[in-house]
Amino acid sequence: MAGKPTPLSGFPELLPEQRIVEQQVVDTLRHTFELYGFGGIETRAVEPLDQLLRKGDTSKEVYLLRRLHEESAEGHAGMGLHFDLTVPFARYVLENAGKLEFPFRRHQIQKAWRGERPQEGRFREFTQADIDIVGRDALPFHHDVEVTRVMVDALTRLTFLPGFRLQVNNRKLIQGFYAGLGIDTGDEVMRLVDKLDKLPVEKVRELLVSEAGVDEATADRVLSLAEIRTADATEVARLVGDLGVDHPLLAEGVDELTRLLDGVADLVGDRVRVEADLSIARGLDYYTGTVFETRLAGYESLGSICSGGRYDSLASDGRTTYPGVGLSFGVSRVIVPLMARTGLAADRSVPSVVLVALTGEDSRPASDAVATALRSRDIPCEVAPSAAKFGKQIRTAERRGIPFVWFVQPDGTHQVKDIRDGNQVDADPAAWTPSAHDLRPTIVSTEPPTEEQHP
Amino acid sequence: MAGKPTPLSGFPELLPEQRIVEQQVVDTLRHTFELYGFGGIETRAVEPLDQLLRKGDTSKEVYLLRRLHEESAEGHAGMGLHFDLTVPFARYVLENAGKLEFPFRRHQIQKAWRGERPQEGRFREFTQADIDIVGRDALPFHHDVEVTRVMVDALTRLTFLPGFRLQVNNRKLIQGFYAGLGIDTGDEVMRLVDKLDKLPVEKVRELLVSEAGVDEATADRVLSLAEIRTADATEVARLVGDLGVDHPLLAEGVDELTRLLDGVADLVGDRVRVEADLSIARGLDYYTGTVFETRLAGYESLGSICSGGRYDSLASDGRTTYPGVGLSFGVSRVIVPLMARTGLAADRSVPSVVLVALTGEDSRPASDAVATALRSRDIPCEVAPSAAKFGKQIRTAERRGIPFVWFVQPDGTHQVKDIRDGNQVDADPAAWTPSAHDLRPTIVSTEPPTEEQHP
Repeated sequence: MAGKPTPLSGFPELLPEQRIVEQQVVDTLRHTFELYGFGGIETRAVEPLDQLLRKGDTSKEVYLLRRLHEESAEGHAGMGLHFDLTVPFARYVLENAGKLEFPFRRHQIQKAWRGERPQEGRFREFTQADIDIVGRDALPFHHDVEVTRVMVDALTRLTFLPGFRLQVNNRKLIQGFYAGLGIDTGDEVMRLVDKLDKLPVEKVRELLVSEAGVDEATADRVLSLAEIRTADATEVARLVGDLGVDHPLLAEGVDELTRLLDGVADLVGDRVRVEADLSIARGLDYYTGTVFETRLAGYESLGSICSGGRYDSLASDGRTTYPGVGLSFGVSRVIVPLMARTGLAADRSVPSVVLVALTGEDSRPASDAVATALRSRDIPCEVAPSAAKFGKQIRTAERRGIPFVWFVQPDGTHQVKDIRDGNQVDADPAAWTPSAHDLRPTIVSTEPPTEEQHP
Repeated sequence: MAGKPTPLSGFPELLPEQRIVEQQVVDTLRHTFELYGFGGIETRAVEPLDQLLRKGDTSKEVYLLRRLHEESAEGHAGMGLHFDLTVPFARYVLENAGKLEFPFRRHQIQKAWRGERPQEGRFREFTQADIDIVGRDALPFHHDVEVTRVMVDALTRLTFLPGFRLQVNNRKLIQGFYAGLGIDTGDEVMRLVDKLDKLPVEKVRELLVSEAGVDEATADRVLSLAEIRTADATEVARLVGDLGVDHPLLAEGVDELTRLLDGVADLVGDRVRVEADLSIARGLDYYTGTVFETRLAGYESLGSICSGGRYDSLASDGRTTYPGVGLSFGVSRVIVPLMARTGLAADRSVPSVVLVALTGEDSRPASDAVATALRSRDIPCEVAPSAAKFGKQIRTAERRGIPFVWFVQPDGTHQVKDIRDGNQVDADPAAWTPSAHDLRPTIVSTEPPTEEQHP
């Protein structure tokens, strides 16, 4: 390789001290998911093209594969890289249904690929963390509450990230409201209402009339519904009721949304809020009840960083239908912009808590023995690469952010120095232990967040 | 999706109880690597084609990418999926050299892809776990010992796998021996010697004469060197010396190999053995000193499941050269055949230790409260999906391998039942704790290993 290679747009890579942040996010998510009985699975990176193209609007973003020396340029048996974890999961459920226990709870933390134009928070390669609960034939509503609780708990534990605002709505509520208004272009209306975060309300009102064919008074009532925002479960029914529309599906949707807000109320705190937001519709996705979006406080321009909902038919083999409910957290979408804007990273670039200094190459075995003793008690450490002057060895530790340097004295006794305050004390390799706080790298931001640009 | 999808040859996917095995392997490797100061990195899945094709012999196996609606069928700006983690790592080191601290220790546990014909242990998508130490300009030999110690320690901790036999050789030893014999076709001789695990020794002898142009007496001495196998460091020099060849590079190689065996002697045990095997050459790879291969006991037909060595020029930008030494463990290559042959899997399909039974849908909050109390003390659990008869709820736990079922009694007290022995005791959700052994799934093999087929 000659010369320095350049990064590839849309394929973010992390430095070691940044990767520690990503690993801690993934570890925290996984730990939380497992506490709730969600086992981890992984699916292969490739899916048959006909599966990937089921949702017409993403087809342009799929990466096709072919082998270098393949005869045909048509791709490797019609295979492409998955663009999310839902399509592969639905296929996995069908393929293994006879070997799975339902309701099946799984988490899946993997990369996905989309050939779209890179921009902040939108990458061509990115990591997603999904949880879903899937039933066979039926899946009671309490699982919608369950999956929300799991994600709220997980986000609450990501204490080194900004706050989250989980926005919930319900497709039955929306569709019932539209049906109660006599609208027969409900899907089109929903698609237009979903543009409220990008277009001014006046423009959406115009489109409702011109494209969805509803009259102006009906358009106003559609927009009034979309204006409702409340974190108070008892308010939902009152605010919707004030709009004077009546329909059994609407009532069912209001009931579900109320139960969901009620069901997570004890978990909600300052860092993670949950609110009903009746403008949330999730565009063309095939949700049938609960829908979720999530905003990262101070990073609203990233759009939704954790989305999902209820699919009454996540997967079906023609005889059996598998309803599901789940959420997908955009790991890369959240952490890569934070790293760029605030310098978010670990306070060291290595796992080591201790650098064991080296007096001379001849005494390397003595330094190795200290490292072995520390490792036997799960304390990560490394031995200095060479017997340089102690000042240089201390700078080796400093540059890596390693807090402690260990010295084997000429008389065979030991001392350990905290190089942050210079404090040096006698220590026994079989007993000395760093504080729990020092044992693992700490996540820090080196710069104040830049101001969010509101377009 | 209509009908049941079928698996894709060469792209193995694991059931939840199998994925727990893979996750424990990966967690154990990562934990060990981090104890030695190796930080984790990940690189993007794609590399420029010219990088992937540097090693001519793997070019046929590369998967090219293109976007579905791309104008050209020539691939996405000449990008392909990486087929190992060494090529991307070398590129990462060059790209980020100014931001890394050397010697740079990293581990990397990721998928790789090769379009080759699938067979046992050889997949089109597979997980590798690599460790490498890279220096700038120079990397002392003690790092060869270090990286070996790390991998031996890691393999020793994989107690639910069969034993490992790490085979070590040194390219300087081989090349010095050949030079001392006056052979000027050393690379060709090495390539032929590397075939000793596939061809009979007589056939290799013939090829040495006919293809490498050495005389029969020299061919015999080449083969005598390749027959040397010993785990005893002091034996290496004696056995090589007996062959009566003298060359400075040979002496250097013998010294390095001896130091390596000496340096790991205290770690070697029954499950993980390390031996000098002077037939190991690693074919066409660009190693310049230490070379490694590893056999899995009882699964020798899988070939080497952990390979690597020293590259004096892992990467170079024309001005600076980065020497490296490392090992790559084939996670999929080891565990997928074991699962197929012995039923290796976790003893439960979910992380849950406890199923909290449900008396009625009305009392779900009481059962949820038990689950919340257990989770607050890091005990994974789930609440029964429905208020079925207790016998049915217990069978729900049984089918998932969950060892405990928790009952909230009508009087508000609690009992927990170990469904393996039927023992049921009073319990407090704020205090009850399962044994450490029960807390995590245990890895078990349900069938005796099938006999290894020797071809």
